[in-house]
Amino acid sequence: MEVKGFCAAAVEAGIRYKGRLDLGLIYSDRPAVTAGVFTTNKVKAAPVLLDQERLRQGQARAILINSGNANACTGEKGMNFARLTAEMAANQLQIDPDQVLVASTGVIGEPLDVQPFADAMPDLVSSLSRDGFPDLAQAMMTTDTRPKISSRTIAIDGTVVSMLGVAKGAGMIMPNMATMLAFVVTDAQIVFPVLRDIVRCGVENTFNRITVDGDTSTNDTVLVMANGAAGNGWLDEDNPAAVETFSRALQEIFQDLATMIVKDGEGATKLVTIRVEGAREQEQALDAARTIANSPLVKTAFFGEDPNWGRIIAALGRSGCTFRPDRVNISFDDVLMVENGCGLGDEAEKQAARVMRRNSFTVAVHLNDGAESGEILTCDFSNEYIAINADYRS
Amino acid sequence: MEVKGFCAAAVEAGIRYKGRLDLGLIYSDRPAVTAGVFTTNKVKAAPVLLDQERLRQGQARAILINSGNANACTGEKGMNFARLTAEMAANQLQIDPDQVLVASTGVIGEPLDVQPFADAMPDLVSSLSRDGFPDLAQAMMTTDTRPKISSRTIAIDGTVVSMLGVAKGAGMIMPNMATMLAFVVTDAQIVFPVLRDIVRCGVENTFNRITVDGDTSTNDTVLVMANGAAGNGWLDEDNPAAVETFSRALQEIFQDLATMIVKDGEGATKLVTIRVEGAREQEQALDAARTIANSPLVKTAFFGEDPNWGRIIAALGRSGCTFRPDRVNISFDDVLMVENGCGLGDEAEKQAARVMRRNSFTVAVHLNDGAESGEILTCDFSNEYIAINADYRS
Repeated sequence: MEVKGFCAAAVEAGIRYKGRLDLGLIYSDRPAVTAGVFTTNKVKAAPVLLDQERLRQGQARAILINSGNANACTGEKGMNFARLTAEMAANQLQIDPDQVLVASTGVIGEPLDVQPFADAMPDLVSSLSRDGFPDLAQAMMTTDTRPKISSRTIAIDGTVVSMLGVAKGAGMIMPNMATMLAFVVTDAQIVFPVLRDIVRCGVENTFNRITVDGDTSTNDTVLVMANGAAGNGWLDEDNPAAVETFSRALQEIFQDLATMIVKDGEGATKLVTIRVEGAREQEQALDAARTIANSPLVKTAFFGEDPNWGRIIAALGRSGCTFRPDRVNISFDDVLMVENGCGLGDEAEKQAARVMRRNSFTVAVHLNDGAESGEILTCDFSNEYIAINADYRS
Repeated sequence: MEVKGFCAAAVEAGIRYKGRLDLGLIYSDRPAVTAGVFTTNKVKAAPVLLDQERLRQGQARAILINSGNANACTGEKGMNFARLTAEMAANQLQIDPDQVLVASTGVIGEPLDVQPFADAMPDLVSSLSRDGFPDLAQAMMTTDTRPKISSRTIAIDGTVVSMLGVAKGAGMIMPNMATMLAFVVTDAQIVFPVLRDIVRCGVENTFNRITVDGDTSTNDTVLVMANGAAGNGWLDEDNPAAVETFSRALQEIFQDLATMIVKDGEGATKLVTIRVEGAREQEQALDAARTIANSPLVKTAFFGEDPNWGRIIAALGRSGCTFRPDRVNISFDDVLMVENGCGLGDEAEKQAARVMRRNSFTVAVHLNDGAESGEILTCDFSNEYIAINADYRS
C-alpha cells in the first residue's frame, strides 16, 4: 500500500539494542498539514515538548522516531538532543529543521548519545522508500512482539485517497493516553482545523479507550500528516459528507492500531471488552469500565478463566460511578451471570467459564439506572506480564 | 495476653473449606462500647449493612466472624442470613440478638448455607476462652499465609489497661478501606464519642495508608470493643492526656496489623514505603504516593530489584498532583537517584539496586513545591500474585 508523496525507512543505529532496527523516518515530499495529540502526563518527554512547540504552525515534512531511549526526564540536555537530532535529519533531507518532528520510546532518564544518530542518518535518508513503513513499524517496537500497521483507501468526490498508520505499544498502556506512538500519513487534501478536530475526537474514541496496566507514559504521541498529494477537493467545513468519510476511515485505522496494542499487551492472552451500560452519564460509564478494566484482581481472573463476577462488582463499587447494587446485571458475551445484583448460580458460572476460554469476549455490566454507556478494551494479566516487567532493562 | 472480660474461640464449621478453622467468635461478658469503620465501596456486603445498623446504639457484646463466604451481592437473602446467624449466636450466648455483630470474608456472591453455622454454634460458644484469640485469627484467614495479632498494655491513671487486635487481609487491599477485617478488644472504660473519633482517625492514618493491589472490597470492617472491665477512670473529654495515651496505643496496634497485612500481600517479597514530600497539600501528597504504590510497572520493578525511577516519575505525572518535573528528587533509602528531575547516573543506580535487595526500604519523592507530605505502605508484584489470583476459588 502506497500513500502518494510519503516514504519511510528504518535502520539499525545501535541506540540501545544491537542487531535490530531502532531508528525510523517518515518523509513527505511536500509540506503536510499535521495534527497531533500528546500524553496528558505532567512529566512530558523532550520530543513531546518539541513537537507541541513545532505543531503550532500546523504542518511538517518529516518525523524522526527512535526506540531504546525515551529522552524523558533528561532536562535541558534532552531538549537540545531532540532539537539536534531533528536538525541532523533536516540537513540530510535538505529541509527546514522546524519541519522535522521527533518521537522517542524506551527507557526513561537514560543518558543520551548523539553518535548513533549521526552515524546512521545518511543511511536512513538514502533508504527512504514508499515501501518503508513495515520497517518503520519494526523500528518503533520495545516490548512489542509484533509490528502494528493498518491502512484504508477511500474515495473523496471520485478521487482515491489513501491512508496508512503505524503504531507501537504493549505496556504502560492506559487511556489519556496509552504509552504508545502512532503515526498516520495520508495524501488527502485537508484544512488544518478540520484535521485537528478529527484527530482529537478519533483519539478520544479509540486510543483513549484501551488499557493494559493503568500506567500512562511520558512519551505518548499520535501524529497525522496529510500532504494533499491525492489532489482531492479540499476537505473543509463546506464539504461535511466528505469530511465524514475521511474521519470514519481515520478512526478505523486508529481503532485497528488500538486493538493491536491491547492484543499485544505485555503477556496478554485474552482481549476483553468491558462495556458499562445503563449509566446516568457517559463519563461515569467510562470511569466504571476503566476501573474494572484496570483491576488486577479482575485481570488475573480473566487469565485464570474464572468467571469471578464478585471482583467485577467490587471494582464497580469503588469506581465512583452512581448506581444501585440491587439493579446490576452482568453478562459474559451472551451468558447472563448476575441479575439485580445477585449471582445466577452454578450453571450460569459454567457457561460463563466456557465463554472465557475464547481469545476475546465482552463483559457487559448493565446498571439499569440511565441511558448512557461506555466501553474500554483491555487484556488479562498473566505471569508473563510480571516476567516482562521485572526483567525489562536488565 | 489477656483482656479482662473478653474471650474468643474458633471452630472448623466446613463453610467452604474442610479441615481448617473458619468460624470465630469474640465475646464480652458485659456490654462493650463499640465503634466501627466500614468499606467505602458502594457495594457493601450484608454483614457490613447489618453492623452499620446495629452500631447506631454504640455498643455490642459479640462478633461472629466467618471465612469462605463473603455474604456479598446476596440481596435480601444475605441480610436475612446475617441476621439469622447472629441470632443463633445470641441464643447460644443467651444475649440480645441486637448485641451481636457479624463479619464475613471470602468469595462474593456464593450461595449461603445456614447448616454449617447451626451445627457449629454450640461447640463454638462452649470453646470460648481468654486464650482463644490466636485461633480466631486463624479462622479469619483466606489467602493470608499468617495469622495477624498485636497487643499493648498501658497504664491509665495507674490502672492497667490491655488491648488486643486480630486482622486478616492479603489481597483486594487498597486504602479506603483495604479488604480486611480487624477487631480490637480492650478492657478500657471509655465513652462512645471519644472511642468513635479515635477509631476513625486511627484507621485513616494506618489501614487507609496501605495498598496491595488497588482493589477495595465489599466487606472491609474495623471494629473496636471497649468493655470497661479494667476499671480505669473514664476516658472522656475531661481526661485528654489519658485519651492521648489510649489513642496512641490503639493506633500502634492498627499500624502493626496494617503492616502485617502488606507484608503478607499476595505473593509479596518486599515491603516498600512510598513517601511523597514537599507537596502543596497533604491530600495531593497522599494521592501521589497511592498512585505510585499501585502502579503495576513500579511494583514489578520492585520485584525485579530494578531501580527504574522512570516508572515512578511517570506514575507521579499521572497522579493529578501539582508539581514541577524539574524540581523532583527521588531517593531509595539514603541513595539519591534523581535530582531536579534528572537521573544521577550509573553509580547511583548501582547503589539503589543494592538498597532494593533489602526486604524493606523507602522510596522518597521530594517535590520541592510545598511543606506537606504523605506516606503509603505497599509491596511488590510478583508472579506469585498472578498464580494466587488466577487460581483462587478453583
